[in-house]
Amino acid sequence: MQSRLSHFSAGTKGLWAIREVRSIKGETLPFAEKIHVGETEVLDANGWTLSGIRSNTRYTTSEEKAQLEMRQEDLGRSESGRAVMILIKKNAEWWLLSQDERRAIFEEKSKHTSIGLRFLPAIARRLFHCRDLGIPQPFDFITWFEFKAEDEAMFDDLLSQLRSSVEWEFIEREVDVRLEKA
Amino acid sequence: MQSRLSHFSAGTKGLWAIREVRSIKGETLPFAEKIHVGETEVLDANGWTLSGIRSNTRYTTSEEKAQLEMRQEDLGRSESGRAVMILIKKNAEWWLLSQDERRAIFEEKSKHTSIGLRFLPAIARRLFHCRDLGIPQPFDFITWFEFKAEDEAMFDDLLSQLRSSVEWEFIEREVDVRLEKA
Repeated sequence: MQSRLSHFSAGTKGLWAIREVRSIKGETLPFAEKIHVGETEVLDANGWTLSGIRSNTRYTTSEEKAQLEMRQEDLGRSESGRAVMILIKKNAEWWLLSQDERRAIFEEKSKHTSIGLRFLPAIARRLFHCRDLGIPQPFDFITWFEFKAEDEAMFDDLLSQLRSSVEWEFIEREVDVRLEKA
Repeated sequence: MQSRLSHFSAGTKGLWAIREVRSIKGETLPFAEKIHVGETEVLDANGWTLSGIRSNTRYTTSEEKAQLEMRQEDLGRSESGRAVMILIKKNAEWWLLSQDERRAIFEEKSKHTSIGLRFLPAIARRLFHCRDLGIPQPFDFITWFEFKAEDEAMFDDLLSQLRSSVEWEFIEREVDVRLEKA
């Protein structure tokens, strides 16, 4: 079985070249040349590594899951020349909410899944969870997006819709890392 | 801030003496003299260590959360002479279900929270998540229960209600470790 755990190591190695590190909220991350994504960490004295694990869905209903699975494509498409890594830490208030309160903010108020669905299959996406890894991580989630270079404006539209949602009021740190195939 | 990660180390040290290791389903765990619970792992050549992390609730509604918080007591009560560690691994089918399907099995069909509520405050309980720790764990959950010695029959009643539920059909491995204050 493939490991669910991935390491995102920024340094001088990797398939993805960093174009820009954008600080959206809170402390940013240092710039580096490239990012290596894989099951093993690639140490670099001047770089950094973030880790995340693929897990079960947390808010998706069976109907939403069926729609996502019908329309989404996997990462690794040869025509996807661009990637973006969105790093998010939610605040303590969010994590103290009950499941139904978080679901209501995530979907009924913020339309997180409905918005994402409208950008499928152009924008491919995979979510990694960091909050419960055991080794404390600076972010709660890493979301990795892949798309064609000409679809970057479309991706920015997706992001701007999510960033103006109620859910984003619970985000205390966000860094946006823009990448292209090295 | 107190670490959310705990290690349960079985060997010759610890505040809790193992009375019995009961294999309920699948492979059991070796017997040991004691269990040490804490933020650091206590290595023992003949023992074993399991790790788990406290996290946000996954199925509890705000109404259920309010009822639990009103009635439950914390671990560490001086009169709690007994503890039980229930180790659970759910099957792949469970983890592929959507959130609404898992919630329906957990509560609407299996009454997991409603059953637990009836045994409060006598049976104190804390859940630790293991599935998304970066270091792979043999179980998905560790639930630690504490109660008075005379309440053990009551605890067995709680367990037997849960074990006859639909939720338990998704459990592929379960070990029940009976403890008393050393």
